Amino acid sequence: MIPRVSIIMGSTSDLPVMKDAAEILNDFQIPFEINALSAHRTPAEVEAFAKSAYGRGIRVIIAGAGMAAHLPGVIAAMTTVPVIGVPIKATLDGMDALLAIVQMPPGIPVATVAISGARNAGILAVQMLATGDEELQKKLVAFKEDLKKKIVKANEELSAVKYEFKI
Amino acid sequence: MIPRVSIIMGSTSDLPVMKDAAEILNDFQIPFEINALSAHRTPAEVEAFAKSAYGRGIRVIIAGAGMAAHLPGVIAAMTTVPVIGVPIKATLDGMDALLAIVQMPPGIPVATVAISGARNAGILAVQMLATGDEELQKKLVAFKEDLKKKIVKANEELSAVKYEFKI
Amino acid sequence: MIPRVSIIMGSTSDLPVMKDAAEILNDFQIPFEINALSAHRTPAEVEAFAKSAYGRGIRVIIAGAGMAAHLPGVIAAMTTVPVIGVPIKATLDGMDALLAIVQMPPGIPVATVAISGARNAGILAVQMLATGDEELQKKLVAFKEDLKKKIVKANEELSAVKYEFKI
Amino acid sequence: MIPRVSIIMGSTSDLPVMKDAAEILNDFQIPFEINALSAHRTPAEVEAFAKSAYGRGIRVIIAGAGMAAHLPGVIAAMTTVPVIGVPIKATLDGMDALLAIVQMPPGIPVATVAISGARNAGILAVQMLATGDEELQKKLVAFKEDLKKKIVKANEELSAVKYEFKI
Amino acid sequence: MIPRVSIIMGSTSDLPVMKDAAEILNDFQIPFEINALSAHRTPAEVEAFAKSAYGRGIRVIIAGAGMAAHLPGVIAAMTTVPVIGVPIKATLDGMDALLAIVQMPPGIPVATVAISGARNAGILAVQMLATGDEELQKKLVAFKEDLKKKIVKANEELSAVKYEFKI
Amino acid sequence: MIPRVSIIMGSTSDLPVMKDAAEILNDFQIPFEINALSAHRTPAEVEAFAKSAYGRGIRVIIAGAGMAAHLPGVIAAMTTVPVIGVPIKATLDGMDALLAIVQMPPGIPVATVAISGARNAGILAVQMLATGDEELQKKLVAFKEDLKKKIVKANEELSAVKYEFKI
Amino acid sequence: MIPRVSIIMGSTSDLPVMKDAAEILNDFQIPFEINALSAHRTPAEVEAFAKSAYGRGIRVIIAGAGMAAHLPGVIAAMTTVPVIGVPIKATLDGMDALLAIVQMPPGIPVATVAISGARNAGILAVQMLATGDEELQKKLVAFKEDLKKKIVKANEELSAVKYEFKI
Amino acid sequence: MIPRVSIIMGSTSDLPVMKDAAEILNDFQIPFEINALSAHRTPAEVEAFAKSAYGRGIRVIIAGAGMAAHLPGVIAAMTTVPVIGVPIKATLDGMDALLAIVQMPPGIPVATVAISGARNAGILAVQMLATGDEELQKKLVAFKEDLKKKIVKANEELSAVKYEFKI
Repeated sequence: MIPRVSIIMGSTSDLPVMKDAAEILNDFQIPFEINALSAHRTPAEVEAFAKSAYGRGIRVIIAGAGMAAHLPGVIAAMTTVPVIGVPIKATLDGMDALLAIVQMPPGIPVATVAISGARNAGILAVQMLATGDEELQKKLVAFKEDLKKKIVKANEELSAVKYEFKI
Repeated sequence: MIPRVSIIMGSTSDLPVMKDAAEILNDFQIPFEINALSAHRTPAEVEAFAKSAYGRGIRVIIAGAGMAAHLPGVIAAMTTVPVIGVPIKATLDGMDALLAIVQMPPGIPVATVAISGARNAGILAVQMLATGDEELQKKLVAFKEDLKKKIVKANEELSAVKYEFKI
Repeated sequence: MIPRVSIIMGSTSDLPVMKDAAEILNDFQIPFEINALSAHRTPAEVEAFAKSAYGRGIRVIIAGAGMAAHLPGVIAAMTTVPVIGVPIKATLDGMDALLAIVQMPPGIPVATVAISGARNAGILAVQMLATGDEELQKKLVAFKEDLKKKIVKANEELSAVKYEFKI
Repeated sequence: MIPRVSIIMGSTSDLPVMKDAAEILNDFQIPFEINALSAHRTPAEVEAFAKSAYGRGIRVIIAGAGMAAHLPGVIAAMTTVPVIGVPIKATLDGMDALLAIVQMPPGIPVATVAISGARNAGILAVQMLATGDEELQKKLVAFKEDLKKKIVKANEELSAVKYEFKI
Repeated sequence: MIPRVSIIMGSTSDLPVMKDAAEILNDFQIPFEINALSAHRTPAEVEAFAKSAYGRGIRVIIAGAGMAAHLPGVIAAMTTVPVIGVPIKATLDGMDALLAIVQMPPGIPVATVAISGARNAGILAVQMLATGDEELQKKLVAFKEDLKKKIVKANEELSAVKYEFKI
Repeated sequence: MIPRVSIIMGSTSDLPVMKDAAEILNDFQIPFEINALSAHRTPAEVEAFAKSAYGRGIRVIIAGAGMAAHLPGVIAAMTTVPVIGVPIKATLDGMDALLAIVQMPPGIPVATVAISGARNAGILAVQMLATGDEELQKKLVAFKEDLKKKIVKANEELSAVKYEFKI
Repeated sequence: MIPRVSIIMGSTSDLPVMKDAAEILNDFQIPFEINALSAHRTPAEVEAFAKSAYGRGIRVIIAGAGMAAHLPGVIAAMTTVPVIGVPIKATLDGMDALLAIVQMPPGIPVATVAISGARNAGILAVQMLATGDEELQKKLVAFKEDLKKKIVKANEELSAVKYEFKI
Repeated sequence: MIPRVSIIMGSTSDLPVMKDAAEILNDFQIPFEINALSAHRTPAEVEAFAKSAYGRGIRVIIAGAGMAAHLPGVIAAMTTVPVIGVPIKATLDGMDALLAIVQMPPGIPVATVAISGARNAGILAVQMLATGDEELQKKLVAFKEDLKKKIVKANEELSAVKYEFKI
């Protein structure tokens, strides 16, 4: 199937974080691709990737990078497809990556999620696609209901725990 | 016309920043609405707003807030419509608002832009809508071309400036 | 017994921190309850919790959360019962949680304690209740005396230690 | 009338911030006192103040200080009355004062509000007193309703504003 | 004359800072050029610039940018000419620009100077060229001697000032 | 008279801050000298200064500097006279200067005071000299008493102010 | 022997850091004492300690504390003996302790050393005493010479290491 | 062979980081030397080193240091040879070292690389030398090509991985 979302990361060492985005897309049955390309070490490949994305059917790009994390912004500069940026924690607790991704100048936005927040990047990609896809929208409503059930169940389990402290 | 994007801010004092998002939507001829509702002072109104958004035709929400900026996350918790968060600088150079918006826990993403980055929030909203709208996609391509022309022209003007320094 | 204090946390994974508040309340023989409810994943349950708190006899709420920690502020928005916020360290050494809890806008305070400071949250809850309860006030005076004795005893033990360095 | 709340600040130069707490107490008709005493320059006076507070009828103390802001913690060390700390912005955007107030070690809590958040300190003091005072509790409910009305009204005014942007 | 150093900035609004680099190059009689090109708004122009730099005789590039400052790193990715990065203060006191420039991943260095440190960028460019140019090296020795004289003279003027404080 | 304290600053532009140290020394009738010497622009002069200090009768050095503030540490490296460091606010709210002064490695301490805390540097110099000078010790006791009187008097003036808020 | 330096820490758990100060004093054969007293849990004992220090022969106090580290400042408020503050790393990498110690308001200095810098606190205490003690001054000169020899020797060992990299 | 680059570090404990610079120089067959000298403990040796560098044939100096990292700036003050600074992470995640190196005042630049970025320091040294050495320039072009190949190969390996997630 033609991928609609593209996950890209600056280095294959980012895969343990970025796979969380892939899992969400898999759960929602959205075709996607994964690539490792570096804004600094393979600029020509990144350019080819970004410029061809829309034409190849890609509608959302999820880009993760660490340190002076330029990858999401560099891609956003070369496509009109919305780019979701995932700051990867490598140094300074990920604060450098967060600022290098979120503080984009006027004209070229990057939709930034939390440090290591690849799972949320996946959900956000689904939400973007659902702006024009009612079927996906229904799946999102069910997904949200599921999230709620899990924490309500956890609370019930806590009810047992709590009595050990009580008077 | 039925608004497709909703701009919401925690206080009317945020309007000088948030109007930049409105201007972009206006330029792209996308119907939108603006509201000031506080996550902390009008929680019931925020809930009514968030829960009715999709049904009223809203496909993207842009939410701006400062300090312990809960508004974008609180709305995201109550709708499946994608929420773009704009950190407003009120204290600590806006760092508190940035962290309170971007560091969302797994399950509920907020697409965060730069501190005071309402213009980019507007552009990102257009990009999200364009994932399912080819006409809008074409307008984005033209918009990007325009951005480039402006800076190329600025560079040409700089060429004149630069000679005063030269040997 | 009807609980007078309610301990709430964003996730059951916060229990190892939040149990310190429970232990203090237990020591002071104050009836309490513990719940895990997420501002983002179970907003309706949080609302029901907050709105019913005063009527059910709750006079102080202790709320712990990490990352973009909205739980204490969201509850404070929906009740007049004082809310004590405990920033939980998950990312950025807990600085994100601290700012997202303490930097509340005018109108809706959250009484914030140190990062992971659940024990102090418990003591503060007792102090609040003691503003209208002389018996509790006397227990607090005894508790403070006890704290002092422990450190004076530790200093005495240090007296032995210190001679090994002396001339 | 015998004051029930005491507002204390490290320097008279903090009055423009701290008066916001006084105004709230005035609105709620709660008798209070204001003093300027420095933890570092008048330690004996601070001690006399803190140790006599409960006996004189004080049930909540609001303490504001800047820089290495020790005043709230030093007072909390010498009384069982709950202490609300207000970080005053003097250097480093107030971050030094915030950390010096909120990061109290186990045993001695300070209920910290936002940087310059004296208004919220006043509201929090009222909430604490209301834990044992039903009349005050009713006033708080009315106050919260009022907050909501103001922002709903602001939103209505914004409705007029917003049309100038619309298509 | 063929320029040996190229000064580039993300926006013409950076000129008041970046002109300090130009002045140093002028003082040392080193031919240079100035351009405004944005990594995000004119990526193709930046690529053309970077790839042609060495061939056109450029031996050092000085690049200034603010916010999520990608320009220096993006250029460094596409040339082997050394790139000096100047963080421009636009938001967060320039800390975002500093981290986005200096924290480059292994393989692609950017020689970073202080926030707004364009004058030092100019001097560093001269030092780099002087590694292979003895004449320039002599000028640098004279320049350093001059710096010293200015502060020694300032100290002498201070000698007069200081007596007003003395006993 | 032979100076016992030496005030040194990286640039004459630091004088408006550093004069506060001079005023204290003047009040205590301690002979002192003031110099502007830069660790980076006049290293030889700084070395001559540091190495001759003890022999010339200097017993305490107060050194102020901004940005990457090396002056206090560089002097401390070349003398056994205690060095008091004053971080001067030039960029990043003075945080860079504070860290560059206080975070000295093992072996070479710098006694650091607050950002712009030159007045406290003067007092600390007097305290150091008083470790071996009983007469000076008595003056310090009187000085401390004076500090207390000023704030007690300010508090009395506040007593008048406060009634305007009272019920 | 009567102690001339007093080492005090907020908790016996700080001993592994603070013992470095003791070792230096031991090396210089300066009589000292060690105590654990908390500014917050034993304020009366801290006051008794601070007020009696000078009379008991103490000429320098070294105080270590973590988190909202008030101990050094609280002691400095109650004595004219110079106080050296050692920030202990407990939370936030020790940044909270550093700011709570160094940012003292005008009038009451604390001579602050690096985070965990107890060894430097010991050396600084010796330097302070040496302002009025020529014998101690000579020992400091010898100590500094020793520091140099160690690193020169380390460099010689590095000479062997370095050849394995060379061409 | 006469070394053209000199690697210097504040302590032999920095060798595990700084050896990355040596490896790059080795790969490019550039003669170099390594020394451990401390700006604070061996100032005279550092001065002798810096002043003799150019005369001994050194054209680039790479200096690594941690905490209040003065070594790069102190050397830059005493030579016209360009100095590359490597912040070493010892405390505060290396932020103190970064600021103490990069925030140099006007007149004395230090070319700063990322925290622990010694590998990039080595590459930057090669780039500086290549400004006057065409042979070296060719090697840099080949090195950059090699970097690209490695990440393209990594991406190909990722292609296999990615299918396990796909639908």
